[in-house]
Amino acid sequence: MREKNRPIGIFDSGIGGLTVVKEIIRELPNEDIVYFGDTARLPYGNKSARTVTRFSLENVKFLLKFNVKSIVVACNTSSSLSLPALRKKFKVPILGVVSPAVKKAVELSPGGRIGVIATAATVGSACYQREIKKSAGRYKSFAQACPLFVPLVEEGWTNDDVTLEVARRYLGPLVKQNIDTLILGCTHYPLLEKLIRKAVGERIQFVDSAKETALELKRVLAENGLKSLSRSARYKFFVSDEPERFRKAARRFLGKIPCLNKGKFSSTISP
Amino acid sequence: MREKNRPIGIFDSGIGGLTVVKEIIRELPNEDIVYFGDTARLPYGNKSARTVTRFSLENVKFLLKFNVKSIVVACNTSSSLSLPALRKKFKVPILGVVSPAVKKAVELSPGGRIGVIATAATVGSACYQREIKKSAGRYKSFAQACPLFVPLVEEGWTNDDVTLEVARRYLGPLVKQNIDTLILGCTHYPLLEKLIRKAVGERIQFVDSAKETALELKRVLAENGLKSLSRSARYKFFVSDEPERFRKAARRFLGKIPCLNKGKFSSTISP
Repeated sequence: MREKNRPIGIFDSGIGGLTVVKEIIRELPNEDIVYFGDTARLPYGNKSARTVTRFSLENVKFLLKFNVKSIVVACNTSSSLSLPALRKKFKVPILGVVSPAVKKAVELSPGGRIGVIATAATVGSACYQREIKKSAGRYKSFAQACPLFVPLVEEGWTNDDVTLEVARRYLGPLVKQNIDTLILGCTHYPLLEKLIRKAVGERIQFVDSAKETALELKRVLAENGLKSLSRSARYKFFVSDEPERFRKAARRFLGKIPCLNKGKFSSTISP
Repeated sequence: MREKNRPIGIFDSGIGGLTVVKEIIRELPNEDIVYFGDTARLPYGNKSARTVTRFSLENVKFLLKFNVKSIVVACNTSSSLSLPALRKKFKVPILGVVSPAVKKAVELSPGGRIGVIATAATVGSACYQREIKKSAGRYKSFAQACPLFVPLVEEGWTNDDVTLEVARRYLGPLVKQNIDTLILGCTHYPLLEKLIRKAVGERIQFVDSAKETALELKRVLAENGLKSLSRSARYKFFVSDEPERFRKAARRFLGKIPCLNKGKFSSTISP
C-alpha cells in the first residue's frame, strides 16, 4: 500500500510542464505529485543534447529524493534528447511526452501526413520524426522549429497580430505540405492553440502531448499495480529560481483546478 | 611587466558580450582576452537577482583562474543586478556596462530625457534609472523592457517587419515621453540598431554600452598602470554549453576583425 501511495515526480525546464500536471490531476486525481521546474536554467529548447541531458539527470536525482514511484519528463526537449540516458541510469519507470503524442497522432491521422512544431533542439534531435517512422513506416512527418513561440507566450501575446504573423510564417511550410495532423510538441504551445488554429485553418487536427501523456501514465500505473489507494492528493512544486514568478505564471498554465490550492509553491533548490 | 601583460577577463550570459569584446579589441588591440559565455544557463534577463548573482560569482571565479588583471561584466543584466556583490567578494577591478553608458548618455542628452531599453530583469532592478539620477539629478529617465528582442535577434529576424512592429510597440511609449537619448541596454540590441532607428525616427541619439565600456576599460587600465606592453594579443573563448553554435554565432557578433582568427573557440567548462 505504501508503495502505491508514493508520489509521481514530474520535471520540466520551467513552468510549461504545468500543462502536463493539469492533465495528470484531471486523469489521476488521487495521486500525489512532486514537480520540479528548472527555472534558473531555462529554456532547454536552444541548448545541446549534452547539456540538456546533464540538467535532466540532475532533475531526476532531485525528484528521487521524494521516493517517487514514477517520473514524467514533461519537457518535450528533454524527452527528445535525454530519455534513453535517463532510463539507462535510473530504475524507476520514466515516461516522456513524445511517444504518447506520436501514438495519438498516428491513430488520428487520416492521410498519414503529420506535422510537428517544437523547439529547435527537439526538431534537431529528429526524435518525433523517428518515432513516427517507427509507429507507422509509410507515414510522412514534417517538423518545424518555432523558437519565438515560447517567448511570445511568456510575453503574454497569446492573442495578438504579431504572434499570428509569426505563426503563419512558421506554419506556412507545413500547411503547404498538406499535413492533416499537427503535434504541438512543446508544453507552451497549447496556450497558442486558438491562434495556431487561425493560422492553419479548420482542417488540421491537433495533438497535445499533455493529455496523451496523462493517459499513458494512467495505463502505466495500472499495469504495474501502482495506482494510489489514497482518496486525496498533495502537490509540491519546486523551482531552481525564485518561486515568486513561477507562482504567478502557474495560474495561467494550470487554470482553475479546485484542488490546486493544496499545492505548495514556496520551495527552491539550487541545482 | 608580467603584471601588465595579464589578460582581461570578460563574461556574459552568452554570445551578446562579443559586441563588447569587439570594441575592446578595437580600443586595446594589444590586450589578451579570456571570454566566458554562460550559454548553458542563458538568458539571464528573465531571472531573479539572486540567481543572476550566483551565476555571476561562478563566472568571475572561472575567469580568475586565468590570472586576469581586470574583469568586464559585458552582460547588462548581470551588471545591473550583481556588480556590488561581485566587487564586495573579489579584489580585482570589475567594470560593468551600465555606468559607462549612463555617463555617455548624460553627456549627449540635450534635454535631459533619457530612455533605456533592456531586459525585464535590468529594467526591474532600476539600476539605469538610479545611475542617471545620481549622475544628473534633474534628468528624467524612462525604462522599457523588451523581452522579445533577444529571441528575435537569435532567430535572425534583425531586418524584418515582425521585428519592426514589435519595436514600435515597445518604443512607442518612450517616443511619446519625448526622449532625446536612448540607451541600448542589452548586448543584443546593437544588432537591431537600424530597425530601432526606423521605429523611433531620426531625432533620438543612441548610446551603445559596448563602445563606452571599452573606453572606460582603457581609462581604468591606464590609471592603474596596467596597460599591456605586448605587441600582439591572444584570445580565448569559453562557453558552458557546446562551443559549436557559439562559434557560428560569434561571426555575426564580432564581424570582420582580422585578428579574430587567433581566437580559440573550442573549450568548454561545466559550471
